[in-house]
Amino acid sequence: MNLILLSKDDLLNSGKKARLSGRRHEHIFKILKSSVGDELRVGLVGGRIGKGTISRIDDKAVEMKLSFDAEPPKPSPITLVLALPRPIVLKRLLGPIASFGIKKICIIHSNRVEKSYWNSPVIKDDNIREQLILGLEQAIDTVMPEVILRKKFKPFVEDELPGILKGGLGFTAHPEAEGVLPPAISSPVVLVIGPEGGFIPYEIEMIRKAGCVPVNFGKRILRVETAVVAAIARLGLA
Amino acid sequence: MNLILLSKDDLLNSGKKARLSGRRHEHIFKILKSSVGDELRVGLVGGRIGKGTISRIDDKAVEMKLSFDAEPPKPSPITLVLALPRPIVLKRLLGPIASFGIKKICIIHSNRVEKSYWNSPVIKDDNIREQLILGLEQAIDTVMPEVILRKKFKPFVEDELPGILKGGLGFTAHPEAEGVLPPAISSPVVLVIGPEGGFIPYEIEMIRKAGCVPVNFGKRILRVETAVVAAIARLGLA
Repeated sequence: MNLILLSKDDLLNSGKKARLSGRRHEHIFKILKSSVGDELRVGLVGGRIGKGTISRIDDKAVEMKLSFDAEPPKPSPITLVLALPRPIVLKRLLGPIASFGIKKICIIHSNRVEKSYWNSPVIKDDNIREQLILGLEQAIDTVMPEVILRKKFKPFVEDELPGILKGGLGFTAHPEAEGVLPPAISSPVVLVIGPEGGFIPYEIEMIRKAGCVPVNFGKRILRVETAVVAAIARLGLA
Repeated sequence: MNLILLSKDDLLNSGKKARLSGRRHEHIFKILKSSVGDELRVGLVGGRIGKGTISRIDDKAVEMKLSFDAEPPKPSPITLVLALPRPIVLKRLLGPIASFGIKKICIIHSNRVEKSYWNSPVIKDDNIREQLILGLEQAIDTVMPEVILRKKFKPFVEDELPGILKGGLGFTAHPEAEGVLPPAISSPVVLVIGPEGGFIPYEIEMIRKAGCVPVNFGKRILRVETAVVAAIARLGLA
């Protein structure tokens, strides 16, 4: 936790102070072992970054005086479209995706996605949000990514994907593709990653028609959780 | 498992056949549900890649006729030097590192590495090997990475690291560095990644003296497991 992320519900005195209990209090009290007068880096969800000076702390809660003086870091230009992976893998990926500064994540169905994955608690709003917050705290960012879930492949790719691309660049990972994912792009780019085993040919063709170029990531077949991080890093580290 | 990796102990008939039980048999029998006549991609540890045609299979073992016709893929030019992370993190990282085709991994101590990590079963030879094999099977490779463990930072960095570099390029991840990790390198390169919280200034200075340039990976602070995959992918996907 390189940043204590505050929501409006944490604020007192019209935003001059915050009072925290629960996970963040526990981190400050038990891990950081902070005491009155200590300064911690804080950020307001969707807002600025600054410092919190502890004015009161005990085993129940911590209170801090707040001052904000910096903007959150630049967002990544990448929009990630991801075929729903195994829920445990998705859970592990959400933090890193948020840490990379990605602000739009579309989680979609595809032929090789097991239908049961859509019933997992991992994709409940609160659980997604929890993982994204961990990623923002890690990367010292305050801007929550938008996550959309689409249980139908075809309407998403046909009707929504072209609009998300807006004439910008788009790539989809496909081991058999001729082209290679280009390194270090700074313009908006959509990255489409399939499930373990890949998209089926029909899906690749539809994604291509929607404007995303199939590219390979090198000759080696990577697990989805590795491929997602690798592709984001390859495209550019914000 | 995109490749069944065979060791010499699995071979029969002076290498024309293999007999497997245990994990690989279970995968073939229960997951792939293969039967006599089916062909599977196989590789010999340290050797060539080819196919195994199932000649016999039951709930105890599988036998295959072997033929080899391809070389393993090109290795990555990256040598990875990694401060020992939390054992659970190391365990998760070894497979991806092997999948990327990295053939030399130096796991070292550093100031912010908890000493207790060195007692973990995760760093026992057999357990490291098990994870590396999973990574090779994933990436369809046969060449085992060499792993060296160094419990003392200073002798490694002073006496061994310059030899590993051999006048080639070397980089170390350091959030405060001015330079940025360059994308897509194809010559031999040494990548040095510190522990969660980073190397201490004295260590960064010693690594710099040994010939590795401190570089940042972008402004965002990533967890070690994300940073390792990101840095490898940034430097080049074999």
